[in-house]
Amino acid sequence: MTDRVKPRKLKGFRDYPPELMVPRQHLMDKMRHQAALLGFQQIDTPALEYGETLLGQGGGDTDKEVYRFIDHGDREVALRFDLTVPFARFVAEHQGTMLLPFKKLQIGLVWRGEKPQKGRYREFYQCDLDIIGVDSEAADIEILGAFQTILSDMNIGPFTIRVGNRGLLTAVINECLPGLDEKAIKSLLIAIDKLEKIGADKVVHLMTTTIDGTTEAGTRQLIAKITGDAFTAIASDNAELIKYRATIECLQAMASLSGNGKIVPDLSIARGLAYYTGIVFETVLDELPMFGSICSGGRYNDLASRFSSKELPGVGGSIGLDRLIACLEELGRLPTCTGTEVFVAIASDDGRPYAFEIASVLRNAGISTDIGMQKKLKKQFNFADKSGAKHVITVGGTELENRVYSLKTLATGAEERDLPFAGLVEKFK
Amino acid sequence: MTDRVKPRKLKGFRDYPPELMVPRQHLMDKMRHQAALLGFQQIDTPALEYGETLLGQGGGDTDKEVYRFIDHGDREVALRFDLTVPFARFVAEHQGTMLLPFKKLQIGLVWRGEKPQKGRYREFYQCDLDIIGVDSEAADIEILGAFQTILSDMNIGPFTIRVGNRGLLTAVINECLPGLDEKAIKSLLIAIDKLEKIGADKVVHLMTTTIDGTTEAGTRQLIAKITGDAFTAIASDNAELIKYRATIECLQAMASLSGNGKIVPDLSIARGLAYYTGIVFETVLDELPMFGSICSGGRYNDLASRFSSKELPGVGGSIGLDRLIACLEELGRLPTCTGTEVFVAIASDDGRPYAFEIASVLRNAGISTDIGMQKKLKKQFNFADKSGAKHVITVGGTELENRVYSLKTLATGAEERDLPFAGLVEKFK
Repeated sequence: MTDRVKPRKLKGFRDYPPELMVPRQHLMDKMRHQAALLGFQQIDTPALEYGETLLGQGGGDTDKEVYRFIDHGDREVALRFDLTVPFARFVAEHQGTMLLPFKKLQIGLVWRGEKPQKGRYREFYQCDLDIIGVDSEAADIEILGAFQTILSDMNIGPFTIRVGNRGLLTAVINECLPGLDEKAIKSLLIAIDKLEKIGADKVVHLMTTTIDGTTEAGTRQLIAKITGDAFTAIASDNAELIKYRATIECLQAMASLSGNGKIVPDLSIARGLAYYTGIVFETVLDELPMFGSICSGGRYNDLASRFSSKELPGVGGSIGLDRLIACLEELGRLPTCTGTEVFVAIASDDGRPYAFEIASVLRNAGISTDIGMQKKLKKQFNFADKSGAKHVITVGGTELENRVYSLKTLATGAEERDLPFAGLVEKFK
Repeated sequence: MTDRVKPRKLKGFRDYPPELMVPRQHLMDKMRHQAALLGFQQIDTPALEYGETLLGQGGGDTDKEVYRFIDHGDREVALRFDLTVPFARFVAEHQGTMLLPFKKLQIGLVWRGEKPQKGRYREFYQCDLDIIGVDSEAADIEILGAFQTILSDMNIGPFTIRVGNRGLLTAVINECLPGLDEKAIKSLLIAIDKLEKIGADKVVHLMTTTIDGTTEAGTRQLIAKITGDAFTAIASDNAELIKYRATIECLQAMASLSGNGKIVPDLSIARGLAYYTGIVFETVLDELPMFGSICSGGRYNDLASRFSSKELPGVGGSIGLDRLIACLEELGRLPTCTGTEVFVAIASDDGRPYAFEIASVLRNAGISTDIGMQKKLKKQFNFADKSGAKHVITVGGTELENRVYSLKTLATGAEERDLPFAGLVEKFK
């Protein structure tokens, strides 16, 4: 025997035993099913990419969190930290053969070496929808409607999608605080993002003390406008406002047809990232607002500009699958593992082929079936009970001879003997 | 604009556009569905593990192919190169709370920095089934029966699972070439694995010239025995042979009930890996034998011995998903992308909310529906045609006013006008 190794995982990583895999798979299946009905097509890209493809993109501290190394061929490589940057590379590489507009679903693992916290891991799934190759309100409505439909199907209770517009927000900023430069506006957007967390007074203080060119009156006016009625924040004949209002109203009409999602206009949705240009959105569960946004995104004017001279506008967003699982857990609505419908216990070795015949017939009929693998019958019964099986069939040499079986229903304890093999499937349908 | 980056993938990695994702997802869904009917439970483990967990395990050159590096916390980490070693770590870590025997499904990406070849990539999916915590013929039958069922469901045509037994093979070796040491037997097993590729004569030459203690007569006798009738290769009262035969016969009876798989006893199946102790198997497609084994595995006597003092016998195997996709492609049976059932074209902006209402109603009824996102109607029609949509609905302000729609069936060119909204869903059911 060689030296024993302590079985342990890396910090920030976790195993998915069946009780976690069942909800994860369940949510992914729902997402895929609805996305297909909506005409989205699934793609995937490699987990590893050239470092130059991924680095310098996330802004702020992202680069420090990227898992990067030198591979066997002396290439600088990195594990993807989101699905957006690899998708930009994908689009630039395939644009000659892609039919545009392209409606994309991608579900994939991403890695970030950030400080692990409750519900935040260094390896997690992102589920992205994007529509690229078109700049139109129809695409904005299609993306937001898609998330509304998919989230409604996930049994997470009522939720609210708050929809802002980066273009309108900039117009309101220019009205209240004219003449700010690009850097100041960027800092302003980051401050606006803190409104809900720290409140208006602290945001005003933050803006006036750290951003050049701001005034107390101007910042107060700005905050009043973007937290008030979004449709009156700017002159009613503003072309952007007319489009924004039509988009929101169309989405509200669709949401009223079906689903649990409310669509709410909210110009205070800023989103930190620099690349958004049009609508931006965030989603909270009405029953669990403290969990933060479970689905966010927006319109960007040029996805693949780092890789290609062709301009590719798009709109997209991401569902935080692991956060949703945590929400379902909190709400007590996590889908649970269930035992098989039938467990076939083998009373003696000569009954084994007959037991497997019974299991095969049941499984072929779509009835989930487990089979006894331990030598002792008592151990098999014990296992069937603990695994949550509903019915136990027992067969040995005698049952084989007469082509019959014994049946016990575990919930009631009811037992039947010498049931005919011929009626097997009907018994469990 | 910053410097442009060339959009390119790492050598040996590939993108999955929709036409590759559809078959991959299709095969995975089938595997999951059948595995659930068979009572297997799905798990997953992290892609990244401590280096000491993964390294020194694959034997031979495996370590050289592992992607390994130092992470942000100065830990030596590595990307998993298979699912077996992480599963051993998982079992050792969770054994106190696991109900045994445990029937496991795991589908996950693995990475190997080996030389890329046609159909072989540095990133690929493995699909593993294992039953751990029990050493019994019932478990052997359950695993092989499970692969037979799953592969039969995948539309890959007739296939043959050749089943050997490492214990019996060793017994035959000891009979024909008595007194070989462990190292010689290991070399012998590797030579036997080459039988099909290079033929008996060359294998005999290889054995007699490179393995101490072999004789030409002994090696010829060995090869005759293991390529002949497996059930007469050794004395008929040998306890291992009796069990092996019973297992094969039970599997053959099950295979005859359903499925496209033949079960064939074949003692020349050696499998290179050192850890197999009982049955070993390989699977080839009858129509594409040159593609090699698409599903292999065997019984091992101690999965987690590196991590735990508790002995955990098991049996398991792996389906090569990417190779299966290559086979389906070769056979012309790859499931293909299909367009949506309906495409809703928007003739004018005032018809947009009505178009989205129509799309929502169809999608809620389970009818896949796409919607026009380009400004010009002609571009929308062109897109609908190219995307493979079956029917095109067109609506504008006039249709909205009268709650009607126009319909064109693309395959026939048939057109209908002023159809009532009320009968919408029935039209496509």
